[in-house]
Amino acid sequence: MDKLRLGVIGLGCRGTSLAKMIMGCIDEIDVVAFCDEYQDRVDHMVNHAKTEYNKDTFGSTNYKDLLNLDYVDAVLVATSWETHVSVSIDALKAGKITAMEVGGAYNEEELWELVDTYEATKTPFMFMENCCYGKIETTVTNMVRKGMFGKIVHCSGAYGHDLREEITKGDVNRHYRLRNYQARNGENYPTHELGPIAKILGINQGNKMVKLVSMASGEFGLTDYVKNNPDTVTQSLLETGFKQGDVVNTTIICENGESIALKLDTSLPRYYSREFNVQGTKGVYNELHKAFFFDGENEWNGAEFNNQQKYFDEYLVPIWKNATEEDLKKGHGGMYFFEFKAFADCALNNKPMPLDVYDAASWMVITCLSEKSIKEGVAVDIPDFTRGKYKTRAITDATELV
Amino acid sequence: MDKLRLGVIGLGCRGTSLAKMIMGCIDEIDVVAFCDEYQDRVDHMVNHAKTEYNKDTFGSTNYKDLLNLDYVDAVLVATSWETHVSVSIDALKAGKITAMEVGGAYNEEELWELVDTYEATKTPFMFMENCCYGKIETTVTNMVRKGMFGKIVHCSGAYGHDLREEITKGDVNRHYRLRNYQARNGENYPTHELGPIAKILGINQGNKMVKLVSMASGEFGLTDYVKNNPDTVTQSLLETGFKQGDVVNTTIICENGESIALKLDTSLPRYYSREFNVQGTKGVYNELHKAFFFDGENEWNGAEFNNQQKYFDEYLVPIWKNATEEDLKKGHGGMYFFEFKAFADCALNNKPMPLDVYDAASWMVITCLSEKSIKEGVAVDIPDFTRGKYKTRAITDATELV
Repeated sequence: MDKLRLGVIGLGCRGTSLAKMIMGCIDEIDVVAFCDEYQDRVDHMVNHAKTEYNKDTFGSTNYKDLLNLDYVDAVLVATSWETHVSVSIDALKAGKITAMEVGGAYNEEELWELVDTYEATKTPFMFMENCCYGKIETTVTNMVRKGMFGKIVHCSGAYGHDLREEITKGDVNRHYRLRNYQARNGENYPTHELGPIAKILGINQGNKMVKLVSMASGEFGLTDYVKNNPDTVTQSLLETGFKQGDVVNTTIICENGESIALKLDTSLPRYYSREFNVQGTKGVYNELHKAFFFDGENEWNGAEFNNQQKYFDEYLVPIWKNATEEDLKKGHGGMYFFEFKAFADCALNNKPMPLDVYDAASWMVITCLSEKSIKEGVAVDIPDFTRGKYKTRAITDATELV
Repeated sequence: MDKLRLGVIGLGCRGTSLAKMIMGCIDEIDVVAFCDEYQDRVDHMVNHAKTEYNKDTFGSTNYKDLLNLDYVDAVLVATSWETHVSVSIDALKAGKITAMEVGGAYNEEELWELVDTYEATKTPFMFMENCCYGKIETTVTNMVRKGMFGKIVHCSGAYGHDLREEITKGDVNRHYRLRNYQARNGENYPTHELGPIAKILGINQGNKMVKLVSMASGEFGLTDYVKNNPDTVTQSLLETGFKQGDVVNTTIICENGESIALKLDTSLPRYYSREFNVQGTKGVYNELHKAFFFDGENEWNGAEFNNQQKYFDEYLVPIWKNATEEDLKKGHGGMYFFEFKAFADCALNNKPMPLDVYDAASWMVITCLSEKSIKEGVAVDIPDFTRGKYKTRAITDATELV
């Protein structure tokens, strides 16, 4: 293979934008097929391929039709949260190299089935956590690997994103978030902040998460938002109500003694931030405070510690250093671009995927475990999806990609 | 009374500096007696009073001698954490108006005894949480009261203070933190961040904290620090070791649906911050991010949202507005000054204390409950020290003090 022939399953906002990005700037991937449960979304992408690239592509509302195509080497699964895992399992069984978009799991069993299917089929699988390719995240991870923060002791992060409009218009926009916020209460989107933290802490690679506890605030933000937007939001949503607490606080303890704090914060007004924070015995990085701070003397200029830019200049990882202005512009600011470049490289050259099925399972399981913890008011054990292999697995991350 | 005659019990770092501050700038208070278990500390303060103010004061190593003095109206209890409550109970019984310094409780029972003693004696009592008088905290509280953040949903804060030197030199400097870090593992100092948050949320005044869960990281920071400082820190501390985790993460749920996240972070290198964060249905304040951020349009200038200074100008509370440069210089940046002004005013004019015995008990109990939660891996119920009176008690805070 010199080009990976990709089918995209799931053409909501994420699937559509990723498909367009890949067609526009990932030379190693040839997008050949589209699927979504809604025919109009399929038509939109098939037309896009024809109009923009004069290219004929396959379209279907049944993903199994796509999995049956011989000329599809790989699939991107960007469906609703509920079906990421089951569609990916079918894709692995069909021998399609699988890129699974992020989300949280609905139960532990589906994740075990995903892991078992991967182990039985050996079909290459990558978990598409784009934040593991972020500029801040990769730079700080690089500094961690060089020992600049000493032994890492505590990391925290958030999915801090005001999604009130997206959620409450879900009935009109066919967005799965709405039904999830109506029916569930948990850390429903942990991986954007947990992924980079887990890589830093060597989760599944010498370390594991052992126990979790979550507590949720009440729900106030969405109800308030619906009430205040009678002209644009369906008012009957107030009758159904929302079960999801506005802020979910989760703490995780790892086998090697580190703690992780996560915050889901998506239904109150706020600035976007992943609130990335890494603390060790020799220093700390804090995104909100713009602080690279080290044991000993530190310089505060009233706005930031120690001139952030200096560290970004010195510790920027190769993928970021080597990217052209054009790469970054096409690749939605970089993260998606690097992520799909890595996926294509591993798929085409038969290299191990940088974010694998164990990462997917251990990061996504936080969602269903947090639901249980909140519901029952207890701490919950986190399963080891590597079945002990984490003890000897080598560290991998994006810091050495080129 | 036109002046409150005060005895200071406990002359470590905090007690000494407060005594000197009061003598220097709180005109309503006359410091007349000193006590500490160490004679040299007593001598130091008696000499200071004589040298600086040509004033004869009483000194003793037994606090009961001080409680027996007819001419002492009030006491400040600034002893080691272990004895704050028991000394204060004796002071209340002796009819001395009591100002109790902050710390965490060792068990729930001592707090019930404190509450019961207060209710039986009616001796005025104030809990000296100076951060309730902080500039940021009072300004944000004022904005909360004016509804600018809507319904408050989530608050968080930290005691983020690198105390490695203070702790590990505790054997030489007779500091109680050392033995606490050797023997306990919990949220040992919650009130600096929890106090202002509890006032915002109306805890004991229409609301209560109902459940808590804590998780601690392992201990790495102090061991590392001792090893790296062989010339200045007693190396045999490594044999005893430290039980206190470097970072303790605590989440609390309140009856009215709010969540609170606290972080104790005192044995790793870091900048000082209480990481004050208040989120509601209409906006958010975040100290680290310098963000006053509201529903709708917000302006980011690359360093902060919406020009912080504007809000400090507009919502600064009277005590801060009315303070002279001189007040702030003398009063250690303001917080202590306002706090002792309020204490003296309430004591002399028989007004209810702004931070009372129920605040003390409900904030300090977090420490022993967090120890239990960490040890047993469970969520823990938080007792209501008002025995139901919280339902009808009126909101009080520092925003209306003048």
